[in-house]
Order: sequence, then C-alpha cells, then structure tokens
Amino acid sequence: MNHLVPLDNLVAALSRLPGIGRRTAERMAMALVQDSKGLMRILANALLEADDGIANCERCGNVTLSAINPCELCTRHRKDAHVLCVVESPADIMKIEESGGFQGRYHALMGRISPMSGTGAADLRVDKLLARLVDEQITEVFIALGTDVESDATASYLKEVLSTRNVKVSRIAYGLPSGSAIEYSDGATLVKAIKGRQEVE
Amino acid sequence: MNHLVPLDNLVAALSRLPGIGRRTAERMAMALVQDSKGLMRILANALLEADDGIANCERCGNVTLSAINPCELCTRHRKDAHVLCVVESPADIMKIEESGGFQGRYHALMGRISPMSGTGAADLRVDKLLARLVDEQITEVFIALGTDVESDATASYLKEVLSTRNVKVSRIAYGLPSGSAIEYSDGATLVKAIKGRQEVE
Repeated sequence: MNHLVPLDNLVAALSRLPGIGRRTAERMAMALVQDSKGLMRILANALLEADDGIANCERCGNVTLSAINPCELCTRHRKDAHVLCVVESPADIMKIEESGGFQGRYHALMGRISPMSGTGAADLRVDKLLARLVDEQITEVFIALGTDVESDATASYLKEVLSTRNVKVSRIAYGLPSGSAIEYSDGATLVKAIKGRQEVE
Repeated sequence: MNHLVPLDNLVAALSRLPGIGRRTAERMAMALVQDSKGLMRILANALLEADDGIANCERCGNVTLSAINPCELCTRHRKDAHVLCVVESPADIMKIEESGGFQGRYHALMGRISPMSGTGAADLRVDKLLARLVDEQITEVFIALGTDVESDATASYLKEVLSTRNVKVSRIAYGLPSGSAIEYSDGATLVKAIKGRQEVE
C-alpha cells in the first residue's frame, strides 16, 4: 500500500472529515476502490456540485444555493424580523428552524471564541452583526449559544460589545431538557435550572 | 435544508460509505460546506485521482496503480510463488502482507458466497483462480477466509471445485488469537481451538 500515492491521498482527505480517524478512512478508501457501482465518481461529483452550488449567505452565514444569496431566511417575511438570533453555525440555524420556535432573523458567527484553537473575536462575524443592527432596525439580539466554556466566553464578549448599542440582549434559557427527570439530571444542569427559576404566574 | 438539492445529493452519496448513517453523513456534509480550507474540492480531487490512478490487478484482484498491472505482488520474486493464497478482498491481501507471514502469491475472490446479498459462486473470481493453477504451476491453494457462515460456505465450495485438481488445499488456522487468555475467550473460538489442537513435538 506504500507506493499507492492516489490511495494515500484519498485516505488523508477522508481523515479530515469530522469523527473519521485514520483506520476508518482506510476502510472507506478500500470500500470506494472496491465499489463496483462507481461510488468514487458519484461522491466526487456530488462534492464538486455542492462546492459550486452551495454558498454561505452573505448576510446571515447560513448555507444557501449560490443562486439565492442572501438566503430565503434573510429575505422572506418573518413575523419577528427585528429580532436577530445569534448562533455559532449554519447547523444551529437549521436545528432552530426545524423546532419552529423562532420567527426572526438569524446570524451565524461561524465559530466561537476559543484560545485553544486560535479563534479570537476578530475571526467571528461580529462586524457584520453590528452593521445589521442598523440596517435591519434590530430591537433584540437573542444569543443562542451552547453551555460550554467557549460559548460562554463568546456570549460574554457579545454582551459587552452590544451594551453600548440601543438594543435588548437576551439569551436562550438553560434548564432541564424536555422529558427529563430531576433524579437523572446532572449537577451542572440542575445548578443552571435552579439559578434560572422563574416565578409561576 | 429541503430545497438545497446539491447538499441533499452530497448527504446521499456520503451515506453510501461503509458505517456512515444518515445523521453522520449530514454532519459531514455540513462540515464540508463550512470548511474554510477547501476540503470539499480537496476530497473531490483525491477521489477523481484515485478513480483514475488505482485499479484492480487483472491477475490477483489486489489494488494497484493503473500503470502497474499486473501488480507487483504478482510479478516480483516471491519465495513461495507456487503457493496461492485465496482471500476475500484486497484489504485482506494488505493485512496478510503487513504481517509478513506469507511469501507466496494472492488471489482475491472479490466477495464470498452470500445468498442473503445475492452473491453466488459465479460472481467470484473462481474461473481466474482455476486458470492460474495451470499458468503459474500452483502446488498449494491456501484458503485464508474468515470464520463466519458465508466464509465457511465459500471455503467449502472452493474445496469441492479444487478436489478434482492436482493441488494441495490448505486453510488458515483457527484458534486463540495472539495475546488472549482462555478465561476471556468466547465459546466458538474455544471450540475451534480445541478441534484444531496439534501434537507438541
């Protein structure tokens, strides 16, 4: 296998996919080589077509057809068009859209502050966020980030930047996930759920 | 995500890789779309280059550079060139070569008899195997298949076909894997290891 450079290159490229280690990449490469239905070329063409046909929305960062940019979520009627939901990535936008729980606009930062991986505030799409506040007369920025350290750092940074703007800043609620029991919840979740308790009306 | 046909096609193609379900394929597709280092095109090119540059050896079935066919293992000097090791796939050839335990020639069947998946004896490279017995003056056919039902069926079929030929037929040993303990071995392995016990010299 040492001298099969094209195979080595394929394994190296497959290894760069998320969650794919070297062994799995080797297994995939062998399956592709041995596939009798032309999967190698089908996959290559799907990649090339996606590379041509898919782009990030210049406004919100969501994935969209290259021909439809800004994306539909940015242009079509939304009930809460003056509420801007800030998320880490396009995958988050899809997830929230699927839930049907939000009717405003989105803004993907394309990352979060992470000194470990060398991502600073300047690498995020914050300038574009600030420009949108004015352009779209945003009244509320709704921060929908996760609960890990990097998301917390990103949220803190955003709150500070937004504090000088005439805009309400909210964040997604932390607490018990739907369908969970106190008995089986972890301590960190309970602490956040207790801290975030709300008065019963 | 519904209207992004190129993304849907990419997810469908990725789902056909071994061990990749729909959720994982979606995660991979999103990672590819969001990758800023051009992984989509790198992977596409690696696939196209592998598709052009890699072929199956016309003699043994091993993967080889398209320009070197028959492959090196079929043409370069081998101590036991008259012993032919029959395996299921090129991946098996690589594994056995890495072990350094075999110095003969190989023959990949490209599958095994599996009524479940519709693979019969006629789909395997048995005709080529029989032709090689004569062409290469093979004295021993060494069957190196696994221990599952389909491999057993394939081995039985080969033994029958080869019984009329003037050739010794051997099979790989089944028993305790290296480094294992009796205490932690499964029953099926122990049965084969006991049945295959050898006299101590």
